[in-house]
Amino acid sequence: MRIDINADMGESFGAYTIGDDQNLFQYITSANIACGFHAGDYNVMNDTVKKAKENGVAIGAHPGYPDLQGFGRRNLQMTPREIYNCMVYQIGALKIFAQIQGMAIQHVKPHGALYNTAAENPAVAKAIAEAVYDTVPDAYLFGLCNSELVKAGKEAGLKTASEAFADRQYTDDGRLCSRLLPNAVLKNHDEILQQVKEIIFHKRVKGLSGGWIPLQADTICFHGDGANVVEHTALIRQALEKENVFVRSVGAPA
Amino acid sequence: MRIDINADMGESFGAYTIGDDQNLFQYITSANIACGFHAGDYNVMNDTVKKAKENGVAIGAHPGYPDLQGFGRRNLQMTPREIYNCMVYQIGALKIFAQIQGMAIQHVKPHGALYNTAAENPAVAKAIAEAVYDTVPDAYLFGLCNSELVKAGKEAGLKTASEAFADRQYTDDGRLCSRLLPNAVLKNHDEILQQVKEIIFHKRVKGLSGGWIPLQADTICFHGDGANVVEHTALIRQALEKENVFVRSVGAPA
Amino acid sequence: MRIDINADMGESFGAYTIGDDQNLFQYITSANIACGFHAGDYNVMNDTVKKAKENGVAIGAHPGYPDLQGFGRRNLQMTPREIYNCMVYQIGALKIFAQIQGMAIQHVKPHGALYNTAAENPAVAKAIAEAVYDTVPDAYLFGLCNSELVKAGKEAGLKTASEAFADRQYTDDGRLCSRLLPNAVLKNHDEILQQVKEIIFHKRVKGLSGGWIPLQADTICFHGDGANVVEHTALIRQALEKENVFVRSVGAPA
Amino acid sequence: MRIDINADMGESFGAYTIGDDQNLFQYITSANIACGFHAGDYNVMNDTVKKAKENGVAIGAHPGYPDLQGFGRRNLQMTPREIYNCMVYQIGALKIFAQIQGMAIQHVKPHGALYNTAAENPAVAKAIAEAVYDTVPDAYLFGLCNSELVKAGKEAGLKTASEAFADRQYTDDGRLCSRLLPNAVLKNHDEILQQVKEIIFHKRVKGLSGGWIPLQADTICFHGDGANVVEHTALIRQALEKENVFVRSVGAPA
Repeated sequence: MRIDINADMGESFGAYTIGDDQNLFQYITSANIACGFHAGDYNVMNDTVKKAKENGVAIGAHPGYPDLQGFGRRNLQMTPREIYNCMVYQIGALKIFAQIQGMAIQHVKPHGALYNTAAENPAVAKAIAEAVYDTVPDAYLFGLCNSELVKAGKEAGLKTASEAFADRQYTDDGRLCSRLLPNAVLKNHDEILQQVKEIIFHKRVKGLSGGWIPLQADTICFHGDGANVVEHTALIRQALEKENVFVRSVGAPA
Repeated sequence: MRIDINADMGESFGAYTIGDDQNLFQYITSANIACGFHAGDYNVMNDTVKKAKENGVAIGAHPGYPDLQGFGRRNLQMTPREIYNCMVYQIGALKIFAQIQGMAIQHVKPHGALYNTAAENPAVAKAIAEAVYDTVPDAYLFGLCNSELVKAGKEAGLKTASEAFADRQYTDDGRLCSRLLPNAVLKNHDEILQQVKEIIFHKRVKGLSGGWIPLQADTICFHGDGANVVEHTALIRQALEKENVFVRSVGAPA
Repeated sequence: MRIDINADMGESFGAYTIGDDQNLFQYITSANIACGFHAGDYNVMNDTVKKAKENGVAIGAHPGYPDLQGFGRRNLQMTPREIYNCMVYQIGALKIFAQIQGMAIQHVKPHGALYNTAAENPAVAKAIAEAVYDTVPDAYLFGLCNSELVKAGKEAGLKTASEAFADRQYTDDGRLCSRLLPNAVLKNHDEILQQVKEIIFHKRVKGLSGGWIPLQADTICFHGDGANVVEHTALIRQALEKENVFVRSVGAPA
Repeated sequence: MRIDINADMGESFGAYTIGDDQNLFQYITSANIACGFHAGDYNVMNDTVKKAKENGVAIGAHPGYPDLQGFGRRNLQMTPREIYNCMVYQIGALKIFAQIQGMAIQHVKPHGALYNTAAENPAVAKAIAEAVYDTVPDAYLFGLCNSELVKAGKEAGLKTASEAFADRQYTDDGRLCSRLLPNAVLKNHDEILQQVKEIIFHKRVKGLSGGWIPLQADTICFHGDGANVVEHTALIRQALEKENVFVRSVGAPA
């Protein structure tokens, strides 16, 4: 049993702080680093890459829609060509900070609304996969389990990692419930731990109506901006390791 | 006699167009490509790199202050650390588009107010030189002739190119007159041609009070957004070549 | 026979120029002034209001999605509450420039993708109508003929003006063809004149498949950013006046 | 003895939260509301005006440089004309939210670097005063005690309020120490209380070298984004009221 724990990091912007990166870095194995479009800025990116290195955490680009006010959570009608260019730009920006620290981009994970659109829309998924292939061909593309994005990544010749969410409510189709819904984000620790265990040990997650959805996850996302995320992540990682789950980044040797 | 002709390219943004890049590309040897902060965007950058390749024009990053409304021409009080990170980000973004086209970043030239500040301010110049060294160590750093920026580039171990301006009025100190002044930009063709010839053949330029300022230029800038810039550049290049000046990018073999 | 001729004005931004406002102001009766979100900025707004006053042209707020790069032409997933607040902000900003010049806001016309969404989506239309009612209750709400927006305006107790487009191809449903389609914008002068005449004299417009769509227009839009728009508008206004059409702003006395 | 307690409010932006407005509103008498340029957005503005009304707190516009990343704390080289237009736009935006709630704009206080520049630079101060006069002529202009801004306000025919800062270290000239310096912001409660008492009871404040600077303050600023600001403000207000200081907004009747 092996799993990667990822979280969205580097989401602060200027004087605005989101997340407790300093502490969360101790418990995760892969950091999705915002690239200055939906969150993050050049100063935060540089600092976050350095912190990842200090903590031995693998890094990935976390590009999103160019929408700081919406935190990348609002759909924006972009053509595949625009999405490709927008991804390339953001990945390039993170890659150079990584290069300065002698680190590789382990993975790319689109953020928020772009991630959700890429799960459903083959043209968007393809544009993203091509951008990743053209910029960091050795990186893993992270996508929702059973999504168009994972499919497009495989078709583009990329390594992919299927992702499940520790604290997000799933629809009956295996998608993430919209954040506009009241119970989209699980807040109770036991519920979150239970969901993580079902994902890892039983390869399934519960949908909104209570039915089980089969999935095979390589990496589990803990939200860097959630309340108590450090505590949840620490306890869950401890609980998993107690049950002999091997917590490693997707790119780490077996 | 050898000279490089550079121009600011890729300054359009979304639905907004600046410059006649398509035609100007035929007459220049080095393109300074805006990186999405003071001008340009990811779509424009991709297109501009492609056009440069098609025209056999060398490319450089043209990073500026994060100020689209001011077109990078207003000073913004940034610390050296912010300037370093801001430069790294923009250079990284352009570098990846270049990499996709199999092109190298020949040079880096800061834009507008950042360029002028870097000509005078050693701390800013040093931050820029370090950013270039850490991202594209083989690139030339373009700076105003006799400026702190060229000095900082040499100190950082970079190749540098000293730049003169075809159509800008110089102060008596050899700096560029502020664009807020009425005659900051020469508009008469003969005047521009004369200034270029003085720069190349007599290694000097006239200051505001009429005195000569000695300078040694490796590259001459024609403003991509000026009126009639295509015509000026074409005629001046022709005039120079008629006098056996070898018009080549700074990075081209001798 | 009476008609208002409106155009999108004040769409320049910083160093970027769009449109030939100076000349177009001579031929229109209502100016839709961008409010700094999808286009325009505070300097442009001030200048544009002054020019409208000098030319005796009525002014309206032209708020759009907060998306300068997309020029407000891309859908952005905003809640009705966000749209309400976003409209209020933009209308307030224009209103104060108008107040300084002693002018009233004659009308409000949402821009681009927001206009199109408001034509179809009752919740968005209602949010816009409420924002107009709460800020400039005496203003006309401009909306596409037969749209949800006009309906919502009437329900909110606003005066409304139904709008038709001089140079846009209509779908068979009487909506505007997407700008992503090649023939969305008519470019031939005779075609444009013909469309305008059908709208005014026969109260109909041709859909994509060639059938007639009935409509009753109070105002006709000429696109301020189109090529040759000044020439088209001048000639068409002249042609209409020759046929005794009374060209006046919607708010002008009979 | 009478004093106004003001704080910077409504500085959150999209998903980013700054300050504990909900609690701070209980202890202040005037709220400086960010207008969407250096902080705040249209949603936050609407909510903040409503909260001010619920708490019986007077409101003012708090316009700043268009620099979200720098939180308006970096100087930006703008001409007086640009500053005038930029102020008008922001004041207009807040004024309309106020109008919807039936509230008046009690005051205008420029933010951060713009405030500091306006304290020293007569041309900037004049542009600001004119913008206030042209938009909300009945409002108070808040400026640093003994500053060019207060002077320009009086010259423009505005009511003015001289402001002192509860927790900012003063220079020997009576200006605010730059936030780039380590001790620019007082953090110790007793020190803050002492500074406030000196300001109110002895009309003086201590400069960096320990000398006293005379000043006459109508309003005291507590920073909405500081740590423990709610606690400091509550305790200090209580302490002042115990000594019979009448804590009222500047615009409240005597």
